[in-house]
Amino acid sequence: MDETTNSVGLALPRRAHFDTSLPLEGGAVLPSFDLVYETYGELNAARSNAVLVCHALSGNHHVAGWHADNPKNIGWWDNLVGPGKPLDTRKFFVVGVNNLGGCYGSTGPVTINPATGKPWGADFPVIVVEDCVASQAHLADRLGIESWAAVIGGSLGGMQALEWTLAYPERIRHALVIAAAPKLTAQNIAFNEVARQAILTDPDFHGGHYYEHGVVPARGLRLARMLGHITYLSDDQMAEKFGRKLRREALQYSYEVDFEIESYLRYQGDKFAGFFDANTYLITTKALDYFDPAGRYGGDLPAALARARAKFLVVSFSTDWRFAPERSREIVYGLVHNGLDASYAEIESSAGHDSFLLDDPRYHAVLRTYFEGIRT
Amino acid sequence: MDETTNSVGLALPRRAHFDTSLPLEGGAVLPSFDLVYETYGELNAARSNAVLVCHALSGNHHVAGWHADNPKNIGWWDNLVGPGKPLDTRKFFVVGVNNLGGCYGSTGPVTINPATGKPWGADFPVIVVEDCVASQAHLADRLGIESWAAVIGGSLGGMQALEWTLAYPERIRHALVIAAAPKLTAQNIAFNEVARQAILTDPDFHGGHYYEHGVVPARGLRLARMLGHITYLSDDQMAEKFGRKLRREALQYSYEVDFEIESYLRYQGDKFAGFFDANTYLITTKALDYFDPAGRYGGDLPAALARARAKFLVVSFSTDWRFAPERSREIVYGLVHNGLDASYAEIESSAGHDSFLLDDPRYHAVLRTYFEGIRT
Repeated sequence: MDETTNSVGLALPRRAHFDTSLPLEGGAVLPSFDLVYETYGELNAARSNAVLVCHALSGNHHVAGWHADNPKNIGWWDNLVGPGKPLDTRKFFVVGVNNLGGCYGSTGPVTINPATGKPWGADFPVIVVEDCVASQAHLADRLGIESWAAVIGGSLGGMQALEWTLAYPERIRHALVIAAAPKLTAQNIAFNEVARQAILTDPDFHGGHYYEHGVVPARGLRLARMLGHITYLSDDQMAEKFGRKLRREALQYSYEVDFEIESYLRYQGDKFAGFFDANTYLITTKALDYFDPAGRYGGDLPAALARARAKFLVVSFSTDWRFAPERSREIVYGLVHNGLDASYAEIESSAGHDSFLLDDPRYHAVLRTYFEGIRT
Repeated sequence: MDETTNSVGLALPRRAHFDTSLPLEGGAVLPSFDLVYETYGELNAARSNAVLVCHALSGNHHVAGWHADNPKNIGWWDNLVGPGKPLDTRKFFVVGVNNLGGCYGSTGPVTINPATGKPWGADFPVIVVEDCVASQAHLADRLGIESWAAVIGGSLGGMQALEWTLAYPERIRHALVIAAAPKLTAQNIAFNEVARQAILTDPDFHGGHYYEHGVVPARGLRLARMLGHITYLSDDQMAEKFGRKLRREALQYSYEVDFEIESYLRYQGDKFAGFFDANTYLITTKALDYFDPAGRYGGDLPAALARARAKFLVVSFSTDWRFAPERSREIVYGLVHNGLDASYAEIESSAGHDSFLLDDPRYHAVLRTYFEGIRT
């Protein structure tokens, strides 16, 4: 796809400052907070065409278009959002927002703690999905959006879309919950825990106050990302893409790169460690681990979902083993049990969890049709 | 099971020194080498009842019984090997051996390099499955065993059993290949690579010469083991055993232990890092990655297996996602293609890859029956 056509074009990050305290699920209170966001398209007169896009672990507010200072920095869901695209910005006013606790400008560990004048670092409280959604409700107020036409997200973003229907049932008309789960399994938590331990035990972590030491725990963050990538890709796709292909002609009989997959993981790990914040990584894995709307209902998901009033599109991908189709079907079951209007699409895809970011034709056709059906 | 009944009893580790050079697959030559081993039962007059037990990544020569200096140190496959057990030491003479490159006494990175008078450390060459088997053939010579009644192993041990049938087709009558694979997938290699990078980038690794610095790369080894454990257990079993059970009453909203699975992984990681050698871990993951008997046959496994003369029992476990049943069936297909006598058992088990170490009744019944049918 030519990035210059059907693009929202130049995207302008904006900052909203909220001079109001935000009580968090964990008990802490943020005295004030900022959210960085972008918007694409125009809010209609009835203010009824707004769509919130929630991001996953490593995403941010830059959903579509490009930045003036870096035209190559295309938004992470640019294939979905734009004029004529499935989430059509000629019809919808689309909002992307960096999660609270993030590292792209919203208040988080890298921003200055007003109490100390230094970066929050490890003192920044753990943020959970409920907190992200609460902060997003403030942004909706600021933008004059009483009710979202839709909230959409994949993975952690999908959990936020789901949480919106529970925390603010009257403020969301459609939820698009993609490649998500109603809660993490022990195996999901286990992978997150290994990633966290890689960061926490990196000598450059300095108890989360590495900024003051002029270093970052790059080794730990690199390992966390390498491990993450294994769980984002499917076994099949890895086999197809890399198999046992060697980087050089012969085996090295050393710990240099032998196989292409090793080279790929090292590259991805190095790249990520060069720009992402380790404290944000820790916080975000906790947000994933803690998400469990059924928890307060003794594990009864249908009971937890009874509050929802939105209509739903739930999407899963056949080879996603991080949040497998079964996990999405649990959500659908809970919705249907409550007589809610829930559509479900299980997309055949070889790309595993990452499928939600790709422009698979069947997947995008489902999203396009769903968005076309939303009245604004 | 009472460990004192049906036990081989006191086990005596022995050391065999081989004052002969061993050329390795990677091109290096070991000028001499030692293997540490244990035996249980009696070699019969015809020397026809010997069974070699090959170990997996973290195993060793101590297969059954206990050690005089530590009666609690029960062999890792004690549930299988003993008088009246499936691998019955009243019938068979059983040999356990620590792999070359290991850290339990056989020549490896922790032993002294005669050329320097210091531990080999990172200078110890990468050892592959073919090298282990070649060294074991020297041990067979030393013990006067012309032909093994059987070679048995799980995981990496199963690969060694398979390799025996290819390297020394006339010296092995039965191969029991359990929870193994004919080669690793990209995903398998990826997990090994993350584990290796955790060790290699630990500041205490010192390029593999940490012995001289009086430290060990415990952080890296701990992460490697935590990650390994995720792949040894099944998703189902983790869910059943741990689920989302909390360690304390409430969520901590910190990076202390929240979930039982986190506590389990940290404990396993810490324990392992306290005794296992990091260089051996690196070597052994490479042995796994490199194993690919079909590689020289353009990926044609049946062609690679044409040399084999043994009879086979191949066993897999339904929830093993490290080396799934499909991988065992590839081996069976290759054997059957060559008209070889191959039995295959796919055991329903919730315990994942680790199932091969457990005494599941159906699994052990299959092994018992197979061993009973072996003529000595």
